[in-house]
Amino acid sequence: MAVYGAVEAGGTKFVCGVGSGPDDLVCAEFPTTQPEETIRGVADFFAGRPLIAAGIGSFGPIDVTPGSPTYGHITDTPKAGWRNFDILGALHRALRVPVGFDTDVNGAALAEARWGAARGLHTSLYVTVGTGIGGGAIVNHRVLHGRSHPEMGHVLIPHDGTFAGVCPFHGACLEGLASGPAMEARWGCKATDLPPGHPAWEAEAQFLAAGLLNWIVTLSPQRVILGGGVMSQEHLLARVRQRLCELLNGYLQPPEIVAPELGNRSGVLGGFVLAEAALYNQSK
Amino acid sequence: MAVYGAVEAGGTKFVCGVGSGPDDLVCAEFPTTQPEETIRGVADFFAGRPLIAAGIGSFGPIDVTPGSPTYGHITDTPKAGWRNFDILGALHRALRVPVGFDTDVNGAALAEARWGAARGLHTSLYVTVGTGIGGGAIVNHRVLHGRSHPEMGHVLIPHDGTFAGVCPFHGACLEGLASGPAMEARWGCKATDLPPGHPAWEAEAQFLAAGLLNWIVTLSPQRVILGGGVMSQEHLLARVRQRLCELLNGYLQPPEIVAPELGNRSGVLGGFVLAEAALYNQSK
Repeated sequence: MAVYGAVEAGGTKFVCGVGSGPDDLVCAEFPTTQPEETIRGVADFFAGRPLIAAGIGSFGPIDVTPGSPTYGHITDTPKAGWRNFDILGALHRALRVPVGFDTDVNGAALAEARWGAARGLHTSLYVTVGTGIGGGAIVNHRVLHGRSHPEMGHVLIPHDGTFAGVCPFHGACLEGLASGPAMEARWGCKATDLPPGHPAWEAEAQFLAAGLLNWIVTLSPQRVILGGGVMSQEHLLARVRQRLCELLNGYLQPPEIVAPELGNRSGVLGGFVLAEAALYNQSK
Repeated sequence: MAVYGAVEAGGTKFVCGVGSGPDDLVCAEFPTTQPEETIRGVADFFAGRPLIAAGIGSFGPIDVTPGSPTYGHITDTPKAGWRNFDILGALHRALRVPVGFDTDVNGAALAEARWGAARGLHTSLYVTVGTGIGGGAIVNHRVLHGRSHPEMGHVLIPHDGTFAGVCPFHGACLEGLASGPAMEARWGCKATDLPPGHPAWEAEAQFLAAGLLNWIVTLSPQRVILGGGVMSQEHLLARVRQRLCELLNGYLQPPEIVAPELGNRSGVLGGFVLAEAALYNQSK
């Protein structure tokens, strides 16, 4: 069986994997430090594991336009050391095989469409709610890229103004209101430490439902997959569904809103789909 | 040259056309009354003009899923007489040629992508701001259909609550805040009668910019085309662009926001693109 390499390059941690799918996956993870050190960690993981291709799902913003001078670079990140870093070039030099490249959420969306909760659907949406909020869409079986990749976490939603939000660009965009760091800033402790009865969760469900409504009326996905660290609170998914129905108010039937079938492995498994695409594109 | 029929079926008026494109188009329009009378008007227009195929861009919501029992029907409209009306079936019986079918805004998006402001682009967005607000997206050269068609006018945006909005489902969604009827309800006269210095226009630009931001971060279109009766105020487009830049606050470069190149003929010309698709699908 083909052996692919996968890298889920997150702002907090990197996850590396070898294999070919959910039933054939060996993973390791380590913290994201400086680029050189982190890439060395990736190279060390793959040393002695011959690959035929690899794929990276990266935190962003990134340049996903083949042919652009900065294709494969992380662009405007505030993360120290990573701004303008050519992550695709660095991994290509380290691994010396074709390397596919996309956002971490697009990778996860591809993996869920291939093996998970969006299997068989032509149009689906994967959203992660964690350190940031991001979304990847599959439209007509292909990942949605337009001018660049989407930046769905930055949608604007109604809010009552009692919390100014933490997004350095927009303050109270969805990410600024509802990401893990936003919850921590607002409520004074980590989201994981807030009990299910805390009012934080009603506010969180309301914000996420408004964001979902905006994505749903724009993309009309057949199913929405809602993952990420903040969503690991089991009570939250049902609350979000309830709020979404209230906001839609009967105007349209909401699509199913489900948890990732691949759990927290959607991101790294996306690397395999991107690896396969890189191999195919090279063989053309 | 092939002669197609086109019907732009709006809630206020129907526009019928014969021809093959912007340089070969004969049009007529008449008010939308009851379904039987209106369809008779369409049949009369096409009588004596032999067609090889036709296309309808219709007001909605409509069922755009081929194979569905209600494919081609207008579904939940509050418009008297039209609820659950089989508009595709009625026109097929009247015209007896293959008939393509989609929303009015998807038709306009297709026409602008074929002949107008989105020519040559793979991913674009057409938005109309008039009696309602609607959007049609082209993604990877194809019109975006997911579970159904988008309902972009119903995005939720931040607002200060001084105006409750007029959407019967959502109150202050974008359509409820910024459509022509919303402006009339808020300011007491038709949008066309408000002078350029009226504060209504700053509010309108702010609402539309927030909606645009939401669609842009979700779809990443290469270009956005902003049409419809309310946008015929020449000063409004520049204000919307300015507000959008302020809202994005440097986070990403906005795509170009432009007027329709096909003017108010995008909708009817979309019928020709849909007609061609119907012919192609029949020949398969």
